[in-house]
Amino acid sequence: MQDLPAISLKWFFEPRSVAVVGASSRKGKIGFEILRNIVEGGFAGPIYPVNPHEQTILGLKVYRSIGEVPGDVDTCIIVVPPHMVPAVLFQCGEKSVKGAVVISAGFSEIGNFELEKQVVDNASKSGVRVIGPNCAGIVNTEKRLYATIESRIEPGDIAFVTQSGALGGAALAWARQEHIGFSKFVSYGNRCDVDEADLLEYLMEDQQTKVIAAYIEGLRDGRRFVKTAKRVSVVKPILAIKSGCSSEGTRATLSHTGAMAGSDKVYDGAFRQAGIIRAEDIEDLFDMARVLHNQPLPTGNRVVVVTNSGGPGVMMVDSLAKLGLAIPATSADTKNKLAFLPEICSRNNPVDLTAEADPEHYRKVLEVTQESDDFDVLVALFVPPAFVKSEPISDVVVDVHRTASKPIVACWMSGDLVTEGVKILERGNVPNFPTPKRAAKAVSALVERGRYLAQMHASISQ
Amino acid sequence: MQDLPAISLKWFFEPRSVAVVGASSRKGKIGFEILRNIVEGGFAGPIYPVNPHEQTILGLKVYRSIGEVPGDVDTCIIVVPPHMVPAVLFQCGEKSVKGAVVISAGFSEIGNFELEKQVVDNASKSGVRVIGPNCAGIVNTEKRLYATIESRIEPGDIAFVTQSGALGGAALAWARQEHIGFSKFVSYGNRCDVDEADLLEYLMEDQQTKVIAAYIEGLRDGRRFVKTAKRVSVVKPILAIKSGCSSEGTRATLSHTGAMAGSDKVYDGAFRQAGIIRAEDIEDLFDMARVLHNQPLPTGNRVVVVTNSGGPGVMMVDSLAKLGLAIPATSADTKNKLAFLPEICSRNNPVDLTAEADPEHYRKVLEVTQESDDFDVLVALFVPPAFVKSEPISDVVVDVHRTASKPIVACWMSGDLVTEGVKILERGNVPNFPTPKRAAKAVSALVERGRYLAQMHASISQ
Repeated sequence: MQDLPAISLKWFFEPRSVAVVGASSRKGKIGFEILRNIVEGGFAGPIYPVNPHEQTILGLKVYRSIGEVPGDVDTCIIVVPPHMVPAVLFQCGEKSVKGAVVISAGFSEIGNFELEKQVVDNASKSGVRVIGPNCAGIVNTEKRLYATIESRIEPGDIAFVTQSGALGGAALAWARQEHIGFSKFVSYGNRCDVDEADLLEYLMEDQQTKVIAAYIEGLRDGRRFVKTAKRVSVVKPILAIKSGCSSEGTRATLSHTGAMAGSDKVYDGAFRQAGIIRAEDIEDLFDMARVLHNQPLPTGNRVVVVTNSGGPGVMMVDSLAKLGLAIPATSADTKNKLAFLPEICSRNNPVDLTAEADPEHYRKVLEVTQESDDFDVLVALFVPPAFVKSEPISDVVVDVHRTASKPIVACWMSGDLVTEGVKILERGNVPNFPTPKRAAKAVSALVERGRYLAQMHASISQ
Repeated sequence: MQDLPAISLKWFFEPRSVAVVGASSRKGKIGFEILRNIVEGGFAGPIYPVNPHEQTILGLKVYRSIGEVPGDVDTCIIVVPPHMVPAVLFQCGEKSVKGAVVISAGFSEIGNFELEKQVVDNASKSGVRVIGPNCAGIVNTEKRLYATIESRIEPGDIAFVTQSGALGGAALAWARQEHIGFSKFVSYGNRCDVDEADLLEYLMEDQQTKVIAAYIEGLRDGRRFVKTAKRVSVVKPILAIKSGCSSEGTRATLSHTGAMAGSDKVYDGAFRQAGIIRAEDIEDLFDMARVLHNQPLPTGNRVVVVTNSGGPGVMMVDSLAKLGLAIPATSADTKNKLAFLPEICSRNNPVDLTAEADPEHYRKVLEVTQESDDFDVLVALFVPPAFVKSEPISDVVVDVHRTASKPIVACWMSGDLVTEGVKILERGNVPNFPTPKRAAKAVSALVERGRYLAQMHASISQ
């Protein structure tokens, strides 16, 4: 199917109409829940449930077959038993359906390669592109298309593509708790047709997507993936978890998907070459996505830490240093510009404003360090002393960030004592992390991305 | 002061009465908030506010000086300006106060060594032991004594001692969100008298404490600390964050506390020798504390992963392997005992029950692996497929855990989709972690602790 133009994937995410083949009226059945998600999610176009044994579901007329649907169908969600899928794809072709998302499982993942081959053959003959089978569906938040059984996520500018549907579901549930928004979600399962590379190409063009985050167990066509990723990553950051990275994990992957996961070192090298930033787990993946989608890129790795508390400041420095970031001392010039600080404060790096820090101290220090040549990234750390509200400090950080050319990462540390302050930071596009370790990891992603683009630029201009 | 018996620290945590010198009627002032915390926290004994300029605060009669208080005072919380602290300690001595917690700051931490020396001298002459100065107070949840300005924490069996008050506050706020309970909290600040070693000795004897968690920036007397910790860690696990572990962090510590933080390698060796398990940050510290306080210790490092989802299972294996844990294949004998599983399941390690896993599958697999000689630790991983509730699986895990001789760690991954299931695990003393990485770290703490005690036992019985 690779000779079909990538642009055709657009039909999956921006269909004029959607059919659900295998729709059910029984709560708890996937054929019901996926239809309900599409209806309640607010998709604006016609929605056609298809099932020869049902009359109406959720107030919608049910059609006996896809052929009987009166209007055009752009995207078809398929949840019928696996042996029926090839025939449904054939009918999709007759109806000129553009894309089919096959939720149904029971194909190559359990050794049923012959049936999966029939899916590919029929789709190919019918000119229908296929996502799946054995997948958890797709989402386009912009079009309010929630063709999935997973959590209904908020709009945002991160696209998340995942090979494992279960991992995808867990990740979306986690992300919803962390108030992370998405442009697109794609669970691609057995990727019998549309694969990782196709999705990268589509997302490169997608206006709503600023960062691409991926969960990958093994690649179908490593060479093409790296080639594509290299082209895409110049335009948008790509972050990826590659699971099965230990030899034990590789063995586990083998027994899970039947696919060889490949040596971890090979992946590591290939990812680096392709400009893909590697994440260790879901938290890592979305933490890094959250800084890359709205922060300017630094031109170096020198970080200044502005804190109101010594101990957490030291922990932040430890975490940054462990990731190879530099925490240089402030220059004499910068120290002079920080002379306004009370005697009790430290004008070294970390700049320690002490428990008596007021918002104007934070503002001026961030302004001075933002303008100085000493640093490339600003980290604002705040641990509220008893009865001090975090909101005014948040306001100031957001204010400085608005016109800053350097990235600012916040670490408001005290759980529900800083809930309101964190909301202000989030609304003001300053990414916040509850621990120094997580904030440091996010900073390292910014530095890695900045370095990669600089290298690319240098190699192009040579 | 080190020649005073350690048992005297008991007065701090189990006083018959408490005075607050420097109590205030103004909301937001530390002298008000700390008194309010003691009163509203529900301390059962007499509470005496002391301030020559106040009449009544929170309905309590205020005394002009500690000397005027009618009854005995066991513990005195001091929040007066720093220059007045030595005189107050002298008055405490005259009143036969046992312990003073000096919240007031402005001593050695800002270079005011002379004033701190006066505090030590007067306390020593008066026979009063001192926690602080420059600290955030103490808590004994059993006695409902909340003599601190920080979050009012729930009872539990973890003791948390911290050099940094701000870090302590952030940690308690974080822990409260994670539903972690505490026996004692001590912010020891400049530790002019009571230090890390004294607290370890006290907590070793404390009935309510099962695990000791510490945040340390630098030690006063490293030799004595290691000697004490070595003795204590045979009885109870000690976990510690040692901040300033990078050379950059050491420099930052130097400018923060004026105390030399020492080479990280020296600390690493000393901690290992003393049986202290080192944590990277707060999350790490309490994650490890949460398994060590209620799980049996493993006799080896072989982990079995029981999962309902392949992808997350592979991620778990990766995380475990990265920490040096073994994930051996199941033996032929165990495989035979798992023959009851449907064909679609994997009887390898991870044991993959697939999305169709039912509670009885989990139960039997956990029972078989718990009894087999193949494994030392059981990890139960669950990612709910759409519309599958996690509670029945939680019930089964708790049930098996009740009579299990091997530790069981859970990883219910899907945020608020598993909230109720996680509650069941927590009530049933099965520690749960939302990501494979965190669960794996907790497992490694169990293995490290088991190995240390086995070594100690072997060296004693030689």
